[in-house]
Amino acid sequence: MSLDPSAAEFEYDRDTRVDKRDDGAFTATLTDGWTTFTTHPNGGYVLGTALNALGQTLSQPDPLVASAFFLRPAAPGPADIRTRTIREGRRTATGESVLEQGGKEIVRATATYGDLAPDPAARVLALEGPPRLPAPEDCPVLPEFDRPEGVSIAHRVDYRFPDRPRWLDGHKDGRPHNEFWMRFADGRQADTGSLAAMVDFAIPAVLEIGEFSTITVELTVHVRARPAPGWLACRVYTKHVAGGLHEEDMEIWDSSGTLVAQARQLAMLV
Amino acid sequence: MSLDPSAAEFEYDRDTRVDKRDDGAFTATLTDGWTTFTTHPNGGYVLGTALNALGQTLSQPDPLVASAFFLRPAAPGPADIRTRTIREGRRTATGESVLEQGGKEIVRATATYGDLAPDPAARVLALEGPPRLPAPEDCPVLPEFDRPEGVSIAHRVDYRFPDRPRWLDGHKDGRPHNEFWMRFADGRQADTGSLAAMVDFAIPAVLEIGEFSTITVELTVHVRARPAPGWLACRVYTKHVAGGLHEEDMEIWDSSGTLVAQARQLAMLV
Repeated sequence: MSLDPSAAEFEYDRDTRVDKRDDGAFTATLTDGWTTFTTHPNGGYVLGTALNALGQTLSQPDPLVASAFFLRPAAPGPADIRTRTIREGRRTATGESVLEQGGKEIVRATATYGDLAPDPAARVLALEGPPRLPAPEDCPVLPEFDRPEGVSIAHRVDYRFPDRPRWLDGHKDGRPHNEFWMRFADGRQADTGSLAAMVDFAIPAVLEIGEFSTITVELTVHVRARPAPGWLACRVYTKHVAGGLHEEDMEIWDSSGTLVAQARQLAMLV
Repeated sequence: MSLDPSAAEFEYDRDTRVDKRDDGAFTATLTDGWTTFTTHPNGGYVLGTALNALGQTLSQPDPLVASAFFLRPAAPGPADIRTRTIREGRRTATGESVLEQGGKEIVRATATYGDLAPDPAARVLALEGPPRLPAPEDCPVLPEFDRPEGVSIAHRVDYRFPDRPRWLDGHKDGRPHNEFWMRFADGRQADTGSLAAMVDFAIPAVLEIGEFSTITVELTVHVRARPAPGWLACRVYTKHVAGGLHEEDMEIWDSSGTLVAQARQLAMLV
């Protein structure tokens, strides 16, 4: 069950809800509210659901690092989640979470949790800053992102781009690098658990070079800080494509200009 | 057993050798030849040993992506490795490998393997190039790296720096970014399996800011191509330190200027 009764008011919490069974495993229902233009539920949403169960299994509050292998596309419908504690240490706890549908593994995540409560005494080095974006209210709402048919995640997540992505107009010679704002559409604020999902909410950068069909093999996310409320500034980019594979990097910065999550995935062109 | 009898001539192959037992698990002996100045065997060396067993378990030849969680420091001595196939697909195979010592998990790795045989028809995008370094023979052999006592990995691996790292002279105000050459000291050429280990062979970049005690929580490596023979050009850097945690990125480029591996780890200052 959800630990915070009020949380169920928000779409993300309702749709990633997990219920613990008597045997210790969890059940969940993946909804059709987070589909991308692959028509499948977004991988980050599926990972967030798997981590929701793991977070209830481990003693530490915040995911520090999670690695997820995407074994098969998810489908809206019931899912079973098995979690297991690998090691509980003093500062960190590590466990795994396997989400299955129809008896087949969809996502296998391993994660280390810890405590990201702010520590004013801790050293801070920040050699790069957030994307320099116009204020969100000065970025137009693109008609293609205004509650489109089919791509249901764009009903759950607000995106604001300072410049119209060139792939929307059929260009295939762009630079696979986009900077944009993002937030949950229903006013839910990001937290460390949802950041681990949101790092997969970007439109793939390789669309800018005409690659429209890419599937994630593995995604690793580092959650670096508890986010301040408000819009999230994001940077997504790909630098290397070779042999049918590419990496995609994603950074999320909060409204105070702090890096709160960074992720890299290896994806395959299909 | 090692599949290639001639491979045992080289230190890396001899020291990562695994033997399959009748029950399907593997045994290995971690040697004292790869210790860092933590006095423990290098994490990449331990991961390489675990992947050596996984590579004999899966049907595909090359690791594409591996994620390793480092649960406890390794020690020279015997180790048990249990591998398991998670999914064998058409283009990729995914499995896990758990290396234990004294009944306790040291490293847990999950990896997807595939085939990195060159495909001349595949699209290539390379938005960043290799480090611009003087030729290896024009980089001096630093006395501190010339078979030092204690840090045995510096006997197994040749390092060449174009500029003397400032931390060697006690400076703590540097930039956590180093570019250097690397190769196995005994003439062994890198391959996709050993690259997954070598991404952890860099001197930690945070030494340049006076942080000498850092332990890896998790490391993800993407192996992007089969390397050409010769010296490897490397770039290691940290951009963000906060809350006692930092990421470290490592890139390895082969002698033809191709990106052959990129890795990121989350590490904890202790």
